[in-house]
Amino acid sequence: MGPDALAAIFPEELIKQEMSTERWIPIPEEVREVLRLWRPSPLFRARHLEKALNTPAKIYYKNESVSPAGSHKPNTAVAQAYYNKQAGIKRLTTETGAGQWGCSLSLAGQLFGLDVRVYMVKVSYNQKPYRRSMMQTWGAEVFASPTDMTNAGRQILAQHPDSDGSLGIAISEAAEEAAGRDDTNYALGSVLNHVLLHQTVIGEEAKKQLEMVGDYPDMIFAPCGGGSNLGGIAFPFFADKAAGKDVKLVAVEPTSCPTLTKGVYTYDFGDAIGMTPLLKMYTLGHDFMPLGIHAGGLRYHGDSALVSQLHNEGLVDAVAVPQLETFEAGVLFARNEGIIPAPESTHAIAATIREAKWCAETGEAKTLLFNLSGHGHFDMTSYDRYFAGELEDSDYPEEAIKESLAHLPKVG
Amino acid sequence: MGPDALAAIFPEELIKQEMSTERWIPIPEEVREVLRLWRPSPLFRARHLEKALNTPAKIYYKNESVSPAGSHKPNTAVAQAYYNKQAGIKRLTTETGAGQWGCSLSLAGQLFGLDVRVYMVKVSYNQKPYRRSMMQTWGAEVFASPTDMTNAGRQILAQHPDSDGSLGIAISEAAEEAAGRDDTNYALGSVLNHVLLHQTVIGEEAKKQLEMVGDYPDMIFAPCGGGSNLGGIAFPFFADKAAGKDVKLVAVEPTSCPTLTKGVYTYDFGDAIGMTPLLKMYTLGHDFMPLGIHAGGLRYHGDSALVSQLHNEGLVDAVAVPQLETFEAGVLFARNEGIIPAPESTHAIAATIREAKWCAETGEAKTLLFNLSGHGHFDMTSYDRYFAGELEDSDYPEEAIKESLAHLPKVG
Repeated sequence: MGPDALAAIFPEELIKQEMSTERWIPIPEEVREVLRLWRPSPLFRARHLEKALNTPAKIYYKNESVSPAGSHKPNTAVAQAYYNKQAGIKRLTTETGAGQWGCSLSLAGQLFGLDVRVYMVKVSYNQKPYRRSMMQTWGAEVFASPTDMTNAGRQILAQHPDSDGSLGIAISEAAEEAAGRDDTNYALGSVLNHVLLHQTVIGEEAKKQLEMVGDYPDMIFAPCGGGSNLGGIAFPFFADKAAGKDVKLVAVEPTSCPTLTKGVYTYDFGDAIGMTPLLKMYTLGHDFMPLGIHAGGLRYHGDSALVSQLHNEGLVDAVAVPQLETFEAGVLFARNEGIIPAPESTHAIAATIREAKWCAETGEAKTLLFNLSGHGHFDMTSYDRYFAGELEDSDYPEEAIKESLAHLPKVG
Repeated sequence: MGPDALAAIFPEELIKQEMSTERWIPIPEEVREVLRLWRPSPLFRARHLEKALNTPAKIYYKNESVSPAGSHKPNTAVAQAYYNKQAGIKRLTTETGAGQWGCSLSLAGQLFGLDVRVYMVKVSYNQKPYRRSMMQTWGAEVFASPTDMTNAGRQILAQHPDSDGSLGIAISEAAEEAAGRDDTNYALGSVLNHVLLHQTVIGEEAKKQLEMVGDYPDMIFAPCGGGSNLGGIAFPFFADKAAGKDVKLVAVEPTSCPTLTKGVYTYDFGDAIGMTPLLKMYTLGHDFMPLGIHAGGLRYHGDSALVSQLHNEGLVDAVAVPQLETFEAGVLFARNEGIIPAPESTHAIAATIREAKWCAETGEAKTLLFNLSGHGHFDMTSYDRYFAGELEDSDYPEEAIKESLAHLPKVG
């Protein structure tokens, strides 16, 4: 795939970043000026949690929940809005499932004077009205997808008038609209190289903050869906490997959507229905749909090409954690550190707790760092269901993975 | 009223603080250690908002929404939990309406190992399930009030089996339980002197933060319900008046519950049904119930005795703002500064915007500071209703105030 394939829906500067081999790309002052509304995000030492675990390990977390949208997503939304504005674009379209990304792009579009249209998966539109309200507060138009405004939407509605929608359909609608209008581009919230690039502000800050207290992590944990918050916190530490630092990077995923731990490394589509160019990545098959999982941001069948390559080369570890363990970890964290974490973030917390407990057994005083990618203020129904005993560890979806892997595209 | 009247439900150290005339009371290290989870809270200059208003005024805001519970309330909840723990108390009871205070005390109790029981007004319990979920995540028991567990609750239920509850009833239930058990105390989230004392950490920090940028406010705005966030940000600046600083302090209240601007300064009960000792304060009458207002934290009929006295002496100004203007201000703030404010906080924003617009007319480059007391993540239905055109400015409730003022207690 070359730059031309992307030009219909992305501005030139973002395509250049997507293809760049430069180590450093400066952050424009206009972007910095907006990021300052919540950055640098705080780095905390989780002393109460350490005490509760009776561990000799030091646990640090980078708190990305302090952004107005409540997660790390605005870090790239702001940059994407800026470069689109510079390119003369007037409108952005995007899809959103749980609403984190739609909120972030709505906020960023508002701050740069771009109109934003969000295709929100219909089931989420109805179940998560507060995320929709946030997007509207930031001035965005939000539609329940499938809509009758696009060919893709109309096609689905003709076949399934009562369709609840899916992320794949919403992507098709948003991309179709952007491809068909000169004044409109499309924006994606994870997976792509330029998205991970923008998120490295997390790790760059964390390095400086740890330096201020004279510390350096032995291990870094981040939840991994599309890969942007993992790449964001981990890649800046990665560069130190050449300088002899031995930091271990761990991607944490749900056992119900075990892309890195159970997927295959091959070419596949980025979306569910096969519209995108092929990406070389770990994948469970583009039509794999995990059931019964409350971390909506970790339901992606594939993974960032960069994270995939590093995992394939043995430079990024991966671990899968079952759902109940993640909520148990989230509650332990909330009861000791105060913040109620998003279900995605609880994956990183669970893996960190495993390691901290291991340190308690071995007596090692390791320095652990995890990315608290977001708060759970709009996920309280998931906590409710956890307390009510209604959540389960979905079994390892062996049959579903086998079936979806059978649909992988044939690559010449 | 002397200390004895309070001893059944408050620990001795808090009663001492309630009665103290000392200028400084040190914050115990155990309390500081918890406050560090989110303090110092950031002070921001609202440059985007200034630009949108085209004002020469400098607008600063203290962001209290960064606490895990989402508002300034944990500042006192933590201190109250600590002093109760020190006094050997095992359990705390409290009431909550919208849920901000109940969340804050649940969090604080959890961190100090105290059991917390929250009587939540039934209508809120059913309408705001996410605030209830947060309290449970922090380990608290939450009951829809009226319950059948207290005499007060049973009495109400006998008369009104379908009662939706009220803050007055919930206070009665919480206080009755605390008064009847040696291991249990009661905690209040505003109004009292020791609560305002604990909140002065906001203003002490703000002074130091403004000093770092070489600035000092000409005017300070805060929403005023019971008075604790106003007292918290304003009182530390108050002390500078003696040193010749001319800072103007403005309490902002809703036109639908205009305690300081339309109430009388006299003795009245602190609760709705006349259980508490009498307090000298501005009051609309203890059985005054404002209708149709989305800032639940500003529905209180009375006001802190300290704030009331200062207002009576002309040292604290007050202004009342209608509901629609507050939401308009909240949306303008969210679209420029990112953060979606709580409906209580939008009152301070609206009054600040009025002043900044006035500065734009006069050309004065005043320095304005307001307290962003909390975020609106659990108030998105109110924003929805605002966008849908369903909110109204309730008229000045002249008849209701006249009626409730007729019920003021006769003081000898």
